[in-house]
Amino acid sequence: MSVDERFFQRIGAETLEEIATHTGAKLVGPAGTLCEGIASSQTAGAGELCFHEGDAAGAASVSTNAAGCFVTEEAAAHLPDGVAALICKWPRLCHAEAAARLVALRGWETGAPLIAASAAIHETARIAPGAVIGDDAAIGEFATIGANAVIGPGVQIGRHTQVAAGASVICALIGDHVSIGAGARIGEPGFGTMAGPEGAESAPQFGRVIIQDHARIGSNTCIDRGAFDDTVIGERTKIDNLCQVAHNVITGRSVVIAAFGGISGSVTLGDGAMLGGRVGVADHVKVGNGSSLAASAGVFRDVPDGETWGGTPAKPIRQWMRETAWLQKQVSPSKKGK
Amino acid sequence: MSVDERFFQRIGAETLEEIATHTGAKLVGPAGTLCEGIASSQTAGAGELCFHEGDAAGAASVSTNAAGCFVTEEAAAHLPDGVAALICKWPRLCHAEAAARLVALRGWETGAPLIAASAAIHETARIAPGAVIGDDAAIGEFATIGANAVIGPGVQIGRHTQVAAGASVICALIGDHVSIGAGARIGEPGFGTMAGPEGAESAPQFGRVIIQDHARIGSNTCIDRGAFDDTVIGERTKIDNLCQVAHNVITGRSVVIAAFGGISGSVTLGDGAMLGGRVGVADHVKVGNGSSLAASAGVFRDVPDGETWGGTPAKPIRQWMRETAWLQKQVSPSKKGK
Amino acid sequence: MSVDERFFQRIGAETLEEIATHTGAKLVGPAGTLCEGIASSQTAGAGELCFHEGDAAGAASVSTNAAGCFVTEEAAAHLPDGVAALICKWPRLCHAEAAARLVALRGWETGAPLIAASAAIHETARIAPGAVIGDDAAIGEFATIGANAVIGPGVQIGRHTQVAAGASVICALIGDHVSIGAGARIGEPGFGTMAGPEGAESAPQFGRVIIQDHARIGSNTCIDRGAFDDTVIGERTKIDNLCQVAHNVITGRSVVIAAFGGISGSVTLGDGAMLGGRVGVADHVKVGNGSSLAASAGVFRDVPDGETWGGTPAKPIRQWMRETAWLQKQVSPSKKGK
Repeated sequence: MSVDERFFQRIGAETLEEIATHTGAKLVGPAGTLCEGIASSQTAGAGELCFHEGDAAGAASVSTNAAGCFVTEEAAAHLPDGVAALICKWPRLCHAEAAARLVALRGWETGAPLIAASAAIHETARIAPGAVIGDDAAIGEFATIGANAVIGPGVQIGRHTQVAAGASVICALIGDHVSIGAGARIGEPGFGTMAGPEGAESAPQFGRVIIQDHARIGSNTCIDRGAFDDTVIGERTKIDNLCQVAHNVITGRSVVIAAFGGISGSVTLGDGAMLGGRVGVADHVKVGNGSSLAASAGVFRDVPDGETWGGTPAKPIRQWMRETAWLQKQVSPSKKGK
Repeated sequence: MSVDERFFQRIGAETLEEIATHTGAKLVGPAGTLCEGIASSQTAGAGELCFHEGDAAGAASVSTNAAGCFVTEEAAAHLPDGVAALICKWPRLCHAEAAARLVALRGWETGAPLIAASAAIHETARIAPGAVIGDDAAIGEFATIGANAVIGPGVQIGRHTQVAAGASVICALIGDHVSIGAGARIGEPGFGTMAGPEGAESAPQFGRVIIQDHARIGSNTCIDRGAFDDTVIGERTKIDNLCQVAHNVITGRSVVIAAFGGISGSVTLGDGAMLGGRVGVADHVKVGNGSSLAASAGVFRDVPDGETWGGTPAKPIRQWMRETAWLQKQVSPSKKGK
Repeated sequence: MSVDERFFQRIGAETLEEIATHTGAKLVGPAGTLCEGIASSQTAGAGELCFHEGDAAGAASVSTNAAGCFVTEEAAAHLPDGVAALICKWPRLCHAEAAARLVALRGWETGAPLIAASAAIHETARIAPGAVIGDDAAIGEFATIGANAVIGPGVQIGRHTQVAAGASVICALIGDHVSIGAGARIGEPGFGTMAGPEGAESAPQFGRVIIQDHARIGSNTCIDRGAFDDTVIGERTKIDNLCQVAHNVITGRSVVIAAFGGISGSVTLGDGAMLGGRVGVADHVKVGNGSSLAASAGVFRDVPDGETWGGTPAKPIRQWMRETAWLQKQVSPSKKGK
C-alpha cells in the first residue's frame, strides 16, 4: 500500500541514481527512474521504493512493480526482473533514509490556528476549548471533540463519535459512534527498532489506524499505526484503559480487552475474543474467534477458536489450573503429615 | 444514589409509557408516572428508573421507591409492589437507552472560553496557560492547575491541591493537599461492557470520583468514576504512575500502590495496604488492612488483614516462595547428580 | 548535587535556628549558619541541608560540607564534625518541610502566555498550536513541539528533536534527534513515599531527567526525575509505549524496552540490554550489558552481562523453560496412561 496522502505528504522525487547517492547504496538498474514514494515489499507500485531484509531468497517475492528495492548483496540476485536493486548493508535503514527525502508526516506550522480553516466540521459537532484540529480533518455529525484534544491533519471522525479530553488522533480513520478515551493516543508510530552502524534506530512507520463503528478505546490507551499497512480495531471492540495495541494488529468484532492488555505487532484477535486484565499477546500470534484469555495470561502461541487459556506461557486453562494446584499440593505444609 | 447534577444534567422527563415506547419494553405499571432520572436498583428513588439483571428472584431487592425497573420477563414477577416493570430482553441496555433521554454528562459547547465565567477560582490559585476549566467548577486556595490541564464542569478542587500538566478531571470532588500527576485521567467512564443484540455495548457510567485529602495520583494514572455510586481514594493514599483504578473501587487511608497497579471494579483496599509494582486485583476482591502484595502478584481472592501475598494466583508469600524454590530444585541441573 | 536552578528556584534563606524552629527539630550546631538550598546527604555543600535515615552509623558518611543534616537522636552522634545536627523523629519529612521554605519548582503564573517571551526558540523549530513553553526554555534547530504539548521552564530541547502532541517535559535536558511520544510524561516527581506521624507522605523530588541523543520515548510513557540526582536515558535507547522509568534509573546505549516495561528506582540497565514486553525490574537491580529479559519477566536480582533471563522471579531462561516444561509434564493428562 502506498502512503495515504491525507496523512503523509510527498515532499520530493528523486531518480534511482540520486537515491543511491544519498543513501550510499549501489544501484543495479536504470539510473533515471523517478521515485516518488515508498511502500512495503509486498505492495510497492510504480515509482515506489521498498526494502527486503532477512532470508535472501525471499527477495523473489518483492512486488514486481516496485521501482527499486533496498537489499543486501546476497538478496539482490533474487529480486524479480524489472526491480532495481539498491544494494547496501542495512536495507531497512537505507529505505528509511530514502523515505525521509520523499514523504513526510503532515503536521503544523508555527502560528497555525487551533482549528484549521480547511477542516470540515459538521455544524452539529461540538468542539471543546483548547482542541486542535488539523488541515483537512473532517468531524462528523454530532461528534464531540474534548478539551485540549488533538485531531491531526486529514483525520476523519465519524458521526456521534466522541474524543475525550487530551486525547490525540493522527493518521487515522474513525468510524461512527466510536468513543475514544481521555489521553488515548491513536495513530502514533509503532515501536519498530532496526539495527544500524551506530546502534539501535527507530524504523519509520507509514501506515494508518482504522477504528470501526461502535468501538470503544479507554483512557490513556495507545493504538499505533501500521508500519506500512493498517492497524484495525473491529466493530464494537471494547478496549479498557492503559492498553497497548501495536502496529498492524487486527481485531475482530466485539472483542473485549481489559486494562493493561498488550497486543504486540501483527497479532490477530478473532471475533468475540475476551481478554482479561493484563493479558499480553506476543508478535504475530492469532487468537481465535470466541476465545477467552484469563487475566495475566502471557500468550506466545496461537489460541484455537473458542478455547480458554491462562498462565504464562499461556496454555488451556484446565492444564494451567491443574499445574497450579498440583504444585501447591506438593509443597503445602499439610502434605508433610501424610 | 441519584446522579450528581453538578456533573450530569437532566435533559428531559418522560412518562413510563413514553419510556416503554422508546425502549421497546413492555410496561406493567402506571403509564403516566413521570421519570426524571436514573439510579442503581438499590438506590432508585421517586421518579427514577433502574434495572435488574441476573438472578430473577433478586429483583425482590430493588428499591421500593423506584418509579420503574427494566427487567426480564422472569424477574418481573419478583419486583416489589409499586415498582413498575419495564420488561425487555436486555434490561441494562434498555436502561442505558432510557438514561440517554433523561440525563447527559455536562461538557462544553463550541466556542466556550478556556476558563468558564461561572467557575469559582480562588484568587490565590494559579492557573497555567492552556488550562481549561468548565462551568461551575471550583478551584481552592493556593491550588495549582497545570498547563493544558482540563477541569470539567462542576468539579471541586481543594486547597493546596495540584493538578499537573495535561491531566484531566471530570465528575470528581478532590480534597485538599492532593497531587494529581501529569496526564492523569480522573473521572472517566469505567469499563462496563454489556451484551446487546448487535454485540458488545458500553454500559454508561453515572457515578463520581472522590479523592480525599493528601492523596497522590501518579502521571498517566486512570481513576474511573463509579457506575452509579462513587470510586473513593482514601486520605493519604499514594498511587504511582500508570495505574488503573476501576469503577467503584474504595481504598482506605495511606494505601500505597506502585506502578502498573490494576485495581478492578468494586475492589476494596484496606487502610495501609501496600501493593508492589504491577499488582493486579480482580473484581470485588477485598484486601485487608495492613496487607502487603508482592510485586507482580495477581490477586483473585480476598486477602486477610496484615498478610503478605505474592504470585499469580496470589497466595501467602511463604507458600509461593516454597513452591518456587521446590520447583527450581526438582529441575536444577545439580539435582541430576543425586 | 544542588538543585538545578533552571528548574527549581530559591525562594528564601533561613538560619539553622530558623530551620529548627520551623521543623520542630532540635539543633546541635551553630544557630546562625545561613541555609539556602538542599541536597542529598552525599552531595550537600556549603549552605545546604540534607537528611540521613536508616542505619545510625551511616550518618558518618554524610558530606562534611553540609550546613546541617536532619537525623534521629541515635544517628546524630555519628555525623562528621562541622555538620550541624537537626534532630527529629522523621528526618526525611523534616527535610522536606525545610526544603519547601527554600526552593520551589518553577511553574507558571496565572495569565502567563502560552509561549514565554524568555524562551529561546530557534527560527527553524516548529511549534504546533496549543503548545505551552515556559520561561527560559530552549528549543533547538529543526525541533518540533507538538499540539498541546508542554515544555517547562528551563527545559532544553535539542536539535531535530520531536515532542509529540500532548506530551509534557519538565526538569529535563533533552539531546538531539530525540523522539518523545504523544502524552509522554518526562520529569515528573518520582514515587517516593515516606512515613510521617499522620501516615504516608510524598517525598519531594529535586533531580532532573537527562535524555541523550537519538533516544526514543513511546507514547504515554513516564520518565520520572531523580530524587536529588538524575534519571538518565542513554544514547539511542528506544522505549516503547506505556513504560515507567522511575527516579534515578540509568540506562546505557541502545537499550530496548518494549511496552509496559517497568524500571524501578535506581536500576541500571547496561548497554544494549533488551527488555521484552511487560518486564519489571525491582529497585536497585543491575542488568548487565547485552542481557536480554524475556517478555513478562519479573527481575528481582542482578542479571550478569550477556545472559537471557525469564520468569517471575526471573532466572536464566533455560532454567525457567525447564521448570515450565517439567511441571507441565508432571500434570499432563497423557502422563496418566504411563
